[in-house]
Formats: sequence, C-alpha cells, structure tokens
Amino acid sequence: MKKIRIAIIGANGYTGFMLLKLLASHRHAEVTFVTSRSEAGKPVSALYPTLAGAYAGLAFSEYDPEKVKDVDVAFTALPHTAAAKIGGELADAGVKLIDLSADFRYTSKALYETTYGVTHPRGDLLKVAVYGLCELNREKIKSARIVGNPGCYTTAAILALKPLVDSGIIDTAGVIIDAKSGVTGAGRKADVNYSFCEADDNFKAYSAVGHRHTTEIEEKTGIPSLVFTPHLLPVKRGILETIYARIKSGDKAEIDACYEKAYGGERFVHTAGGNLPELKTVRGSNCAAIGYALDEKNGIVKIVSVIDNLIKGASGQAVQNMNIMFGLDEAEGLPLVGEHL
Amino acid sequence: MKKIRIAIIGANGYTGFMLLKLLASHRHAEVTFVTSRSEAGKPVSALYPTLAGAYAGLAFSEYDPEKVKDVDVAFTALPHTAAAKIGGELADAGVKLIDLSADFRYTSKALYETTYGVTHPRGDLLKVAVYGLCELNREKIKSARIVGNPGCYTTAAILALKPLVDSGIIDTAGVIIDAKSGVTGAGRKADVNYSFCEADDNFKAYSAVGHRHTTEIEEKTGIPSLVFTPHLLPVKRGILETIYARIKSGDKAEIDACYEKAYGGERFVHTAGGNLPELKTVRGSNCAAIGYALDEKNGIVKIVSVIDNLIKGASGQAVQNMNIMFGLDEAEGLPLVGEHL
Amino acid sequence: MKKIRIAIIGANGYTGFMLLKLLASHRHAEVTFVTSRSEAGKPVSALYPTLAGAYAGLAFSEYDPEKVKDVDVAFTALPHTAAAKIGGELADAGVKLIDLSADFRYTSKALYETTYGVTHPRGDLLKVAVYGLCELNREKIKSARIVGNPGCYTTAAILALKPLVDSGIIDTAGVIIDAKSGVTGAGRKADVNYSFCEADDNFKAYSAVGHRHTTEIEEKTGIPSLVFTPHLLPVKRGILETIYARIKSGDKAEIDACYEKAYGGERFVHTAGGNLPELKTVRGSNCAAIGYALDEKNGIVKIVSVIDNLIKGASGQAVQNMNIMFGLDEAEGLPLVGEHL
Amino acid sequence: MKKIRIAIIGANGYTGFMLLKLLASHRHAEVTFVTSRSEAGKPVSALYPTLAGAYAGLAFSEYDPEKVKDVDVAFTALPHTAAAKIGGELADAGVKLIDLSADFRYTSKALYETTYGVTHPRGDLLKVAVYGLCELNREKIKSARIVGNPGCYTTAAILALKPLVDSGIIDTAGVIIDAKSGVTGAGRKADVNYSFCEADDNFKAYSAVGHRHTTEIEEKTGIPSLVFTPHLLPVKRGILETIYARIKSGDKAEIDACYEKAYGGERFVHTAGGNLPELKTVRGSNCAAIGYALDEKNGIVKIVSVIDNLIKGASGQAVQNMNIMFGLDEAEGLPLVGEHL
Repeated sequence: MKKIRIAIIGANGYTGFMLLKLLASHRHAEVTFVTSRSEAGKPVSALYPTLAGAYAGLAFSEYDPEKVKDVDVAFTALPHTAAAKIGGELADAGVKLIDLSADFRYTSKALYETTYGVTHPRGDLLKVAVYGLCELNREKIKSARIVGNPGCYTTAAILALKPLVDSGIIDTAGVIIDAKSGVTGAGRKADVNYSFCEADDNFKAYSAVGHRHTTEIEEKTGIPSLVFTPHLLPVKRGILETIYARIKSGDKAEIDACYEKAYGGERFVHTAGGNLPELKTVRGSNCAAIGYALDEKNGIVKIVSVIDNLIKGASGQAVQNMNIMFGLDEAEGLPLVGEHL
Repeated sequence: MKKIRIAIIGANGYTGFMLLKLLASHRHAEVTFVTSRSEAGKPVSALYPTLAGAYAGLAFSEYDPEKVKDVDVAFTALPHTAAAKIGGELADAGVKLIDLSADFRYTSKALYETTYGVTHPRGDLLKVAVYGLCELNREKIKSARIVGNPGCYTTAAILALKPLVDSGIIDTAGVIIDAKSGVTGAGRKADVNYSFCEADDNFKAYSAVGHRHTTEIEEKTGIPSLVFTPHLLPVKRGILETIYARIKSGDKAEIDACYEKAYGGERFVHTAGGNLPELKTVRGSNCAAIGYALDEKNGIVKIVSVIDNLIKGASGQAVQNMNIMFGLDEAEGLPLVGEHL
Repeated sequence: MKKIRIAIIGANGYTGFMLLKLLASHRHAEVTFVTSRSEAGKPVSALYPTLAGAYAGLAFSEYDPEKVKDVDVAFTALPHTAAAKIGGELADAGVKLIDLSADFRYTSKALYETTYGVTHPRGDLLKVAVYGLCELNREKIKSARIVGNPGCYTTAAILALKPLVDSGIIDTAGVIIDAKSGVTGAGRKADVNYSFCEADDNFKAYSAVGHRHTTEIEEKTGIPSLVFTPHLLPVKRGILETIYARIKSGDKAEIDACYEKAYGGERFVHTAGGNLPELKTVRGSNCAAIGYALDEKNGIVKIVSVIDNLIKGASGQAVQNMNIMFGLDEAEGLPLVGEHL
Repeated sequence: MKKIRIAIIGANGYTGFMLLKLLASHRHAEVTFVTSRSEAGKPVSALYPTLAGAYAGLAFSEYDPEKVKDVDVAFTALPHTAAAKIGGELADAGVKLIDLSADFRYTSKALYETTYGVTHPRGDLLKVAVYGLCELNREKIKSARIVGNPGCYTTAAILALKPLVDSGIIDTAGVIIDAKSGVTGAGRKADVNYSFCEADDNFKAYSAVGHRHTTEIEEKTGIPSLVFTPHLLPVKRGILETIYARIKSGDKAEIDACYEKAYGGERFVHTAGGNLPELKTVRGSNCAAIGYALDEKNGIVKIVSVIDNLIKGASGQAVQNMNIMFGLDEAEGLPLVGEHL
C-alpha cells in the first residue's frame, strides 16, 4: 500500500510532537514536511531528542504553499484564524485538511466569532467542514475534506454528556463541568506562570468564567447554557472532568444501557459504570474512559470523564480522523494501552 | 511565663509531625510526652530526621494515663472512637483536650453515629465540647475544656460558605463542592494506592458519594443537603475547593461586604475577591484564602477556598485553638507566610 | 504466522504490567497465561485498568506447571531463587525461558552466591544460560533456551562502559558510577518509604555500599572493582548514570569512533557524543542513549547513560530477547520513540 | 530594641522572596525598601500572594541610591558585576552589605575574573569582603561590612569537605562532586527549558565541565583541582551532593571525631554519621546535614551533603550572616525544622 504523504504545519509545539510520535509507528504514514517559523532549519530531534531514531533526516522548514500541495493530508497546528487562512488555502488546493485549532469546529459562524472575538477568515468553509469527534461523527468524517479536530476539554465533555442528553436522562439545565487539565494543555511556551517552580506542587482554577470551550460543548451537546471551570493540575498530561447533572428520568440501569448503546462497540471509548476512571487509566493512550456515581439523595449524577489531552484530546484523535478519511483501520498507529506508570 | 506542658497522643502520623514542627518554634510551649503504639521507644527524629535539632531527646512512648495527666493540654491524633475514649479520660482528669478526630466535632450525636457507623463512646461530652473553627467560634473556644478540631475539607468549606449562607446571599439548595486534596490527607501509611508510583502524575475522584465530611459541613453551615466530591491531587499538601452555589440575592459588592464583615480583621483568613487563590497561596501557612467569580449568565457564584490541610486544616488550627484557650497571641508559633515554592 | 504463546509468571508487578503493555501491540505474540499468587482470580484490568481494552478476558491465575508447559516462551518475574526453581522446571520441560531476576545473569555461580547471600538452586543451568544484553550478545541469544535478562542499572552501565574498556580508552581502576533511578525500580509495593508523601519532592542515596548490581557490572565489563552509588529520584521511570573514568589513552575522536563501532548500526542504542542525554530522551522507549564530556584538566571522562528502567532496563529488553530468540524483527512491539512529555 | 532597617536590591527573584519570607518572622527586622526594575510599582503580593498578610503595604520600587542609604543593611540579589557596582556604592556610603552574587566571594580577583569572564568592577573591595560561610568564618563576619554570601552548591560542598581536608583524612587529589539541585537554583525565569512540561519527570546533567562553582569550592577548601558535575532534579528546592574522596589516613572513628570537632556545637549543621541525609531532612530549614559511607574495598569515602538551596544555600545563610553582624541570636528568624512533607 502506498504511504499517505503528510505535512504538519506548525509542528514545533506539543501537538506537533505528538503527531510525529504517533505517526512514527503508523504503518501507512510518511511525514514529508514539517513547518515551524521559529525553528526553521533545525532537525526535529534538536527540540525532541527522543525523535532522533525515527526521524533522522527530518528538519523544520518555513511554510511553503508549493511544497505542501504535494501531500495527501495536512495537519494544521496553528493559532486560530491563521489556521483557517493557511488551512483554507490547502483545502482549496485539494489537500485533505485536519485542523487542530478552533477554526473549523463550529457550525455557527456567529458563535465562533463571539467566542473568539474575531472575524472568521474562511466562514465559507464551515459548511463543508466536519466536526471530528470520531465516535459521534464517523460517517461524515469518511468523506470529509476538512475536519475540525475537537478541543481537549470538549472531547471529554461531549463524549460523557451527549448520550445522556439525547436519551433524556439528564436535565440540560444546571449542568456543571469542573475540569482539570495537565500543563501540556497550555502548549510549549516560555512563560513564568508555566515554569516548573510556579506550576509544580500547585493547583488552581483559571478562566473561571467564559472559557472558550464552553460554547463548543454547548453547540455539540445541545445544552443551552452550562457552567464550566477549568483548573490546572501539576501533571503534564491528562484531563479529568467531574460533571454534575440533574437526573430527569432514569436509574443506573438506564444510564448503563445508554452508554452501552453509544459506545459498546468502540475501541477507544470505555464506559466503566461505577468504577470511576483516573488519569492513569488513559494517559498515554487514545482512549476516553467514562464512569459515574449516582447521588440519589440530591438527584444528581456525577460523571467522571478522562482522556489524554495530547492524544484523544488532540493529536491521537487527529490521526484517528485521518485513518477514517483514508479508509484505514481506525486504530492504526494509535495506542490502546496507556502508561499507568 | 511558664511554658505550657503538652502531650501528643498518637504522634507518629503527619498531624503529629506537624504539631511537633509548629510547636518547635512556639515560645510558650513544651512538648513533654508523645505517644505511638507502633513506634514506642524510637526517637521522633528516627521517623522525621528534620526534627533532630529541635527535639534531640524526645522519643515516642506507649500511652500511659498517669504520665499524661501531668500536662496542661493534650492533642489527640487517634482514630475515631479511640480518640473519644482516651480523650474523654484526659478531660475527666482535668487536662484540656484538643482532639483532631471527628469525635468531638458534631453537636448531634445521632448525626455523628450515622455518619461514622459507630456508637459514640462518650456522647455525654458532646454538650461541653466546642467546635474549634477559630474564626467562627473564638469566644466559646476561650473557655472550652474540650475542642473538636475541624476536619480539613470542612474548614475550607465552612469558612467559604457560612457567611454567604448566613447573609442570605446564596441559596442553600443545590450547593456543590468539588474538593481536591493533597495526599497527606490520607495520612502516613503503607498502602499501594498511596505509593509514589500509583499516586504521582495521577488524579482521581474518590468516595464520590457519602464522604463523611459532608454531614459535618451540613451541620455547621445549616445547608440541609449538599453535593460533595473529593479528589486526590498529586501533591503532598493543600486543599482547593471549587464551590458552586446559586445566587439568591446579591452582587459582587454584597459578597465582598459579606466576607469583609466576616474576616476583615482576621490574620489567618484572607479574602481575595476576584483573585482566585491557588494552593501555593497558602501551602506552608496557617492561612485560608477565599476568592470567587460570578457566572452571571447562569446565576452561579463559584467560590475557590484553599488551605494547607496539615496546618489550617489540622495541626495549625489545633495550635491556634490552644493559643486561644490559654490566652496567648493567637498567631504564636503559626506561619503567616506560606511556601509559594 | 502462528502467534508465539506466552506465559508471564509473577505478572502483577510493574515489569509484568510493562510486558503486558508491550505485548499488546506485538503482532506475533499472544499472552495466554499470567500468574500471581496474591492476585489470582482477578482480571489484569482490576490492577491496571488501562489494560481493559487489550486484555478483556485475561485474569491472573495461580501458577500451574501443567498449563505453563503449553506455551512457547515464559517470562519469569519472580524473586531470586524462586525464579531459578520455577524457571528451571520450565526450561527442563522445553519452554524457552526469559528470566527477569538475577538468577541466570551470572557466569560465576560463586559471585552470584556471594552477592545474593544464597545458594543457587539451579547452578547447573548457568552454563547454558545466556546473558541477555541484546546488543552485546545477539548471536548467542539467537539460539539460547535460557536468557538471564540484565538488571536495570547494569544495562545502562555496561552499554556505556564495555566499549571503552575493551578498546583500552579508559582505566579500569577508579571507575565511579553515580546512578539515579525512578521509583518503579523498587517495584509495586505497600511500603511507607515508597509512599507518595515520603518519596515525592525528595532525593536520596541508598545502599551506598554493596548494592548487588555492582558485581554484575564488574563481571560483564571486566572492571575488577568499581564504586557504585544508587539514588532514588522522585520520578516513576528512568535511570540516569553519571560515570567517571580516567582516560588512559584517547581523545574525543577515539571515543566517538569507539561508540560508533559498537553501536553505529543499532536501533536501540543512541550515542550522542557531546549532547548529554536526559531522562526524557528515552523514557517510554526501548532506547539507551549515551553521551559524554571530557574533563581534560582532570583527565576524566564523564559518561551519561540513560534508559527507561522498565523498558530497556527490564521488560522491553526481555521482549527484544524474545524477538531475537524467535527470529523476528528485533524491534517488533518495541517503542522507538519515547514520551518526552 | 530598635529594628534593623533592611533593603533588598533585586527582590523579585526567588532569593528575594525567601528573604521576605524569612524576615517576616524575624523579630528585629524591618524591610523598608525592595527594588525590582521589571516589577517596580507592583505590590510584592502581586508576585507572591502568600506575602499578602505579612507585607500588606510593601511594593517593588526602582533602585534609588538616596533611599537605600537610609537603611542599616542591604541584601543585593543582582547579576554579577551589577552587584559589585551597586553593592560597592552602598558599602562606600556606610551601609552594611550582604551580597548574594559571586562578586564578593573570591579572595583572588584573578580567579573570579577567569571564572566569570569579566573584569571585577570593584576589585578594591575584595580585601575587606568576608566570605559568609557562617560556621567557618564566624569571627570575621562579626565585624565585616561586606559579606560575600556563598553559592548554593559551594555551601554544601565546603561544609562537607573542609574539615576532612584540613585534618588530612582525605586526599585532595581525585575528589569528585556529583551534585543535584532543585529547579529554583536556576531562578525565576520564563525559559522553556525550565517550564513544567520540560523539567518535570526529567533529570539531566548540565554544565558538565567548567561550572563556575568549581573554582569557589577549590579556593575555599584548598583542593587544587576537583571534578564537579551539577544535575537538575525535578523538585523545586534542595541540593544533595554525593562526594567521592580517597581516604588518605583514617577510619570511621576519625571521621566522626573530625566532624564532631567542626560542627558539634552548631545548630545549623548536623552530622549524621552513617545515616545518609536526604533532601527532606533539610528542605524548608536553614540546616545542612552531612553523612557518609566508607567503601573500604575501594578506599573511598562517599559523603552525602544536603541543604535547602534557597535557605542555607542563599537567603537563610544571608539572614544568619546579618544576625552575626548585628550581634543577634544567630538563629533569629531561621527555621530549625524543615518540611519533611
């Protein structure tokens, strides 16, 4: 089988690294072009020495539209609006696009623009872009030419909430998501607030009101208005969300059946019933794991949803989308077992 | 001034260590007797080498009622029911008692017994015991002969919630506490679940329904039924609680005024308004810090309350109680500035 | 190709977990039998939930010689002497054996017995056992029926030292190894000294004189007597050794040539010259990385050698040995790229 | 007693923070002036919220020579050469100076200039400056008007080595120091290499040849040429050095006697004989702890020396020097007991 030729645009950050790591063990992938404005000219192993064995000859380049057009698929890991501009050009040129920014996630252009406070540079493409939450949108992804890869917090939240909302088990009013993320969620950067000395042994809430992922979760689940609070964990990788929702109708058996129906056949979404998953259940794998506890006295279900933010929450799901788009085994190159340790 | 003679019963655990650490720099305290069944005969510096300079001659002993009666005050750091039995004997003998277990925290014997699933061995003393949340109960503590030192989660929760409940700003229905604690909260123990390899880089919810601190918070705040979820952070020390409550009446100015009225003159409770405190704001100090954010769209206030679980959440507050009981400067021996790093 | 049928004896510890994790993505392996006395009857996913997707039906069993004989190869992860007894039985029965204990590592029975303070229960097998340091012993491993899988500290040390000793570049007198290991090196256990609260944020030397790996390194490198000091890092995985040796004859070019000759064609040993490798260069991969700095003023070469103690230092090398023994691609199932993050 | 008026020049970094933290509980100190070019105008609690209770009114200012002259003592925490210039002006004006840079540590101007690659701007003051290693230089410090506060690595090394060198127990040839430090040693900075994601879970050697502290240790111990390798631990605070030296003459009893003679009466230097100290023995305290193991087979003593790099290795020792210079109790404001947890 001919290898899929791949470009990664904006490859020096942590999602870029994780794409390179995952694609190194993908049997049908060949990364031919990686760009980084700040690191152009450097071998990828200068930033990430662990890549030395797998990518001996690969160096970061400046972005060059001519070279990129030679590939089958491009992953864009750029700031929003920049992603839409460059990604849009690539899509126009016939390159399949998997964009890791927010630019192709929203159906509603207005909601995107309100949330991000910008004008969408390629609003015309929102109609053709497909939201790349693989387990919920697989059929559309198969034929997509632009995939908006979901946000990390949103992947964990939507996988946990959508089946319960759709089945009418929970009330869509009063949903609260208390979310905790590892520091890689903030990306690779020189910022004293994310320095080891300031972030280790610490824990804090941030963007306590108005975090941008709120509207993405609302649009995709149909919950009209939810409360979302992100926190920063002193770990590198992993997201755990504790979600509080009021039970409208249903008990343990119905919740189990609901999740079983949604994810019973999935390899990358595990529902654990009353066994609440932990970060280490999924860190290092492309899996999401979902468990819950019923607080019957208060009529509340507490759902715990975990993913590795760099894998299922970003680069892993991006590769999963690529596998679907190219008709490959959906699990190719993707770790089913996590690190635990 | 004559030094206060002090016994610590059950001193080998982490609250015992922290009592010894704090009392080492207390100018009016003299620790004369420390007990531990499992470590009897060993110097305290065998378990905690950093105590070597301050407690060169002190060793753990078996508990001996005769020797203990010789002290002015005893701190009991024992499992519940054991604490009531031994603490009760000491109190009967005229020793002032500061108990770090749950045995003297509840006003309602029935609530204690339901929560802990045991019969209270000294229910007769609940009438004379005073709940040792210093800032809320200072007057009663002054003349108390038995103080039930509050739980760690409960200290952070009650300090944050009580003023808002009392002032009618928040609805007592629908309160949710999403609590995160460092691993010292589980004590000093040989348990694979708390081993470095299992707890580091991890994060999880536990006791997702029915954690015992729930009823303590309910009794002390007057909230009839609240939702409480504890989580385990991969840090040693510190509790951060994210508390969700519905605004009944009031705005930012009223909340600020409410907290200012409650804690304006306090040295160990800091209210930071919109600046959400972090673990490092208080770790290593006896301070609580409280901040909040208003989610006006959803009519919710998100309160963030932080303490060091071993200091304000246990041993520091115990020393603060001792200072109050003995008419000393309330801050004697207690760190006002935390570690940050 | 028919799958290799595999038993793991003593599979509940961390090397057992890592074998299961690695073999889950091995295309020619089928784990048919895993034993654990303490966990018999439990699914492997009860201890390690991240294995749920890959090993849905697999549970720990009691050891049963009859069942084990049905496999092609057995990995033994047992205490020393127990490993030799059970492993010896298996080998007698014609099962290929890869033993992760020290029992089949030594050529000299006397040295083993002095080092471990026991009588070797199957000293007769030392003649046929092959030391499984893949890069140095590949030809013998191909036809081995018993492989003594090297220790973690020893793998990092021998790979770094043997080429320099053999080429006469360094003096075999005065070699000092200052070694630092993550906590998984101590295994999975309930021990307060390895609890999160005691091990996190800490660093210490241990077994400062007489650590058992000293003699294994001496026997395999031909260094008659070396100084070895292990330390415990507050990380889960990874070993970094800083090795001090006196230059006998040679310069940078000769050292580079020496390492190039030894490892130039190897996929899992990377020599980085003056770029000193770090833990994150190899954690999560089966690679060793070796760099060095010349302290010309003092006539000393400082060599830095790193591995992931659970992979190249244990289970990864064990799988690499299996691949060699069964004529497979040596890299099958083994990660070439590490975690970095 | 009148309070000592104190300026801290360059107070925004971690040594500045630690000075503020320690001086907050010093009964005879009053910090009246803190400077920072980058943070001028901000309250100290904006950078370090935990200082809010103790320093409600204090803000960073631009440096102003007029205001500074009003104080009794100045701590300078500035880059080398800048420290000598500003510190020199202050000393000229009669302010006592405790400089935390390298500028006043060396006796030999030439050695300083070679080591730091600069011309000393105030070489004239080296004659009057006193090296502030309190336990070794106490008498001179009493009357000093300029104190060069020792480096962190050097404090741990000199305390461990000097008594053994002076007594002739160890050979001054062939000494090797394998040093490991927490990340605060690199200061407060926005640098991706010290970000949480790059530094956590990692360990590495750096400046493997030619680290500047080498010559400071050589000058102060009289060791003509030593081998020094620093490493970066994934912890915030603490230094542990494993020191290898050849025994020239002497046994365990002589080493014990040598250390007892040097430090038997000291409150802040603990010699533990064969009990090797760990980071947690001293983290959070002003203590150094020293232990050792004899490798008799190889004729080597392995000494383990630990300090908290921000306290005994910087700000704590600076306050200890101030206490000596002003005739106070040497322990005033200084923690004798560390954190352990």
